[in-house]
Amino acid sequence: MNFHKCSTLLLALQAVLAALFAPNTVLATAPNVVVIFCDDLGYGDLSSFGHPSINTPRLDQMATEGMRWKNFYSAAPVCTPSRAALLTGRLPLRNGMCSNTRRVLFPDSTGGLPDSEITLAEMLRSSGYRTGCVGKWHLGHLPQFSPLQHGFDSYFGIPYSNDMDRTGDAPRGRHAIFEPETEYFNVPLLRDREILEQPADQTTITRRYTEEAIQFIQTPSEQPFFLYLAHSMPHVPLFRSPAFEGHSRRGLYGDVIEEIDWSVGQVLDAIRDSNLAENTLVIFTSDNGPWLSQDAHGGSAGLLREGKGTTWEGGMREPTIMWWPGTIEAGQATAAMGCTTDLLATCATLSGGQLPTDRVIDSVDLTPVLHDATANTRNELFYYRAYELMAVRMGPWKVHFQEQGSYGTEPKKLTKCAPPKLYHLEHDPSERYNIAQNYPEIVAQVEQLVEEHRKTLVPAPSQLENKP
Amino acid sequence: MNFHKCSTLLLALQAVLAALFAPNTVLATAPNVVVIFCDDLGYGDLSSFGHPSINTPRLDQMATEGMRWKNFYSAAPVCTPSRAALLTGRLPLRNGMCSNTRRVLFPDSTGGLPDSEITLAEMLRSSGYRTGCVGKWHLGHLPQFSPLQHGFDSYFGIPYSNDMDRTGDAPRGRHAIFEPETEYFNVPLLRDREILEQPADQTTITRRYTEEAIQFIQTPSEQPFFLYLAHSMPHVPLFRSPAFEGHSRRGLYGDVIEEIDWSVGQVLDAIRDSNLAENTLVIFTSDNGPWLSQDAHGGSAGLLREGKGTTWEGGMREPTIMWWPGTIEAGQATAAMGCTTDLLATCATLSGGQLPTDRVIDSVDLTPVLHDATANTRNELFYYRAYELMAVRMGPWKVHFQEQGSYGTEPKKLTKCAPPKLYHLEHDPSERYNIAQNYPEIVAQVEQLVEEHRKTLVPAPSQLENKP
Repeated sequence: MNFHKCSTLLLALQAVLAALFAPNTVLATAPNVVVIFCDDLGYGDLSSFGHPSINTPRLDQMATEGMRWKNFYSAAPVCTPSRAALLTGRLPLRNGMCSNTRRVLFPDSTGGLPDSEITLAEMLRSSGYRTGCVGKWHLGHLPQFSPLQHGFDSYFGIPYSNDMDRTGDAPRGRHAIFEPETEYFNVPLLRDREILEQPADQTTITRRYTEEAIQFIQTPSEQPFFLYLAHSMPHVPLFRSPAFEGHSRRGLYGDVIEEIDWSVGQVLDAIRDSNLAENTLVIFTSDNGPWLSQDAHGGSAGLLREGKGTTWEGGMREPTIMWWPGTIEAGQATAAMGCTTDLLATCATLSGGQLPTDRVIDSVDLTPVLHDATANTRNELFYYRAYELMAVRMGPWKVHFQEQGSYGTEPKKLTKCAPPKLYHLEHDPSERYNIAQNYPEIVAQVEQLVEEHRKTLVPAPSQLENKP
Repeated sequence: MNFHKCSTLLLALQAVLAALFAPNTVLATAPNVVVIFCDDLGYGDLSSFGHPSINTPRLDQMATEGMRWKNFYSAAPVCTPSRAALLTGRLPLRNGMCSNTRRVLFPDSTGGLPDSEITLAEMLRSSGYRTGCVGKWHLGHLPQFSPLQHGFDSYFGIPYSNDMDRTGDAPRGRHAIFEPETEYFNVPLLRDREILEQPADQTTITRRYTEEAIQFIQTPSEQPFFLYLAHSMPHVPLFRSPAFEGHSRRGLYGDVIEEIDWSVGQVLDAIRDSNLAENTLVIFTSDNGPWLSQDAHGGSAGLLREGKGTTWEGGMREPTIMWWPGTIEAGQATAAMGCTTDLLATCATLSGGQLPTDRVIDSVDLTPVLHDATANTRNELFYYRAYELMAVRMGPWKVHFQEQGSYGTEPKKLTKCAPPKLYHLEHDPSERYNIAQNYPEIVAQVEQLVEEHRKTLVPAPSQLENKP
């Protein structure tokens, strides 16, 4: 074989291999995925979820064109474990992204999401996606825990909560009802691994996240994309752009939500304008419930009990909307259960990606529900507070084994429920009527579930307690 | 002039007079009016108002085609005074349809709505409307207080609450969570003044009210119509047709609401099928908030505080939808304040009817809001509990002068608020943060309002305390 022939053959072989293994092999049918993740947004904070003085016309339109989820959960009631769960499809105690003492990561934390974890971004990148992370990270601010180490091509955002890194004279405790916060916070704004700005100008943070998201969406590419847009808002301290000052009847908190609503509209418009609407799944949800101790600076869980930090429904059930014109039928609402951990299995199905097989995942494929609002693929949910299994949902039933308040009205002491309490969440969504005595067989079934569940559990040591 | 000429002239004159004064003179442009009034429905009980397990697709569609009101109130937190206020456009204490001891009428009551009152039905009948009353009356069951005495051409319904007239062995107190009520109630069902059935078969009551309503709508006539369809449901004891057994994920209460939702759909369909949609204003609302002490047989006020019987928002703010294709722009939500007493002035404008001029009315014309969701014609609301002025709303502000619980979580003792409490209902819809200290000038303004209001007040003796 002469060199020419050989090189032709090699080129042909190369083309075949490229077709088989190139990043964009599976992409012809793989949709783009956009996850818009709010911080401390309550179940009752959107107008389409019943709020009387917050107006969210773009989110309501997203719901009218898509699907409202009425039983969609974050996997933890506070920030760091919730984010770890969304990105790994695993309960936080499996990878140590929780702690019974320090509930989240702080600027002095030296821990973060272990490199051994496989993230949604890594899975999708392996399937040929380009991946972007915009917004709050909170899975470790040291370089080895950067979004760039965890499957994202690019990062723009604040590495932890926007109320961290306080200056000495930062106000603490309860916030004033009507006065906007002033800048007592020294949080940095990063591009990739570089600090762009410190303190970050938070008044423009929602707008700048939005601009970054749009730029990412509009980047010309043959690859499909995964965008993780994790807003820093409406976590206190609350900030909004000058354009949204006094925008809402709900005051500052409403201004902030209405700017997020605007942002969602901008993102959907960018997708539509790029002719990608029919090939893009957009998921809007939140990391945990409303921060009830923040007075009017905190949100509302509507009729759900309690809020952030707790495993009552208000702490973990999120106002969730999924949008995918042409695939999700317009104007549907689903009673199906779902959890942020399920995005991993759902995206594996949509992208042809490989789920990890060497570890337990807590992820259920929700694609059947996208095609049929009456479908249901998840029947159980385990409510953890750090390492403590607090409650379990099985269908409409929820058993509380332990109770503990956090920032709301409930006592802060951890209390065993002896005997366990039973609520019917569909008949009694506010968890008011313990009917364990009437349904001992349901409690027994749930206890059996817990026994099975515990067999799969190897709690990892906490990554959140490391300090210098 | 011979007799023939004279009679011709007289006939012509008669025709002119007929054209000028006949009942249907003003009717060419006067719309039909349908008021659908629920009993104890909570602000949070419709899916379009945020309920996670009750499905109300027809009401949601009504909202999508019409206007959702987020600040619409009943004029009293319990049944009899609320109904009296809707029909007279007056606060109950002006006509004695309230009492500090017996809060509503009972089967042994000998009182009722005074004949001297001018009802919405009387005003509209004077303007040439035919008028029908279907459902719960509760303004006096003795013949002299019948709907037929108060401006209605016809009546079909139960004269008081569906839990009255209990048989000796009727269950009292808290209701079971899942078990439907059995028939322990001896309430009569009337057609006009005749008892049709006793006890009324309540399992079919929503369906039969609906059939009557549709028959009334479809009655051929040149006159416009006013239909007052006052459901007996979801007041306990809860009943629904066999077709709705197990219909709802929310259990029995949800079944009942979903049958009302079906009923609303039937009524709107009948209007549309009769080609009357563009000439019919339909108003859906409720008489007071949810009966919180009824466990899962009571509804939810969503994020609003408390329920039925109280003057917190949950007691009097109602999930309200107005529908009038071609006049009300589709898919609007309004923050405008409104009250059931306003239907009188609103209907006067729409029908060319005459408002009473010899008495004080508490009625504000809401038609500007029907044409423009950003309009606002009512700026004040007086929250009465029987004869006690409990609170006043002025714009977004609400001042509580007295507090008293009823069936919910608040203490039942009447307590003066000294000093008065101030809440900002738009920033703080759940009435959590008393900020009176920060805004003494607002409290003073509201106190001034109260002083002006008291000048117009001549409380009438109670009609509710009369017993044999």
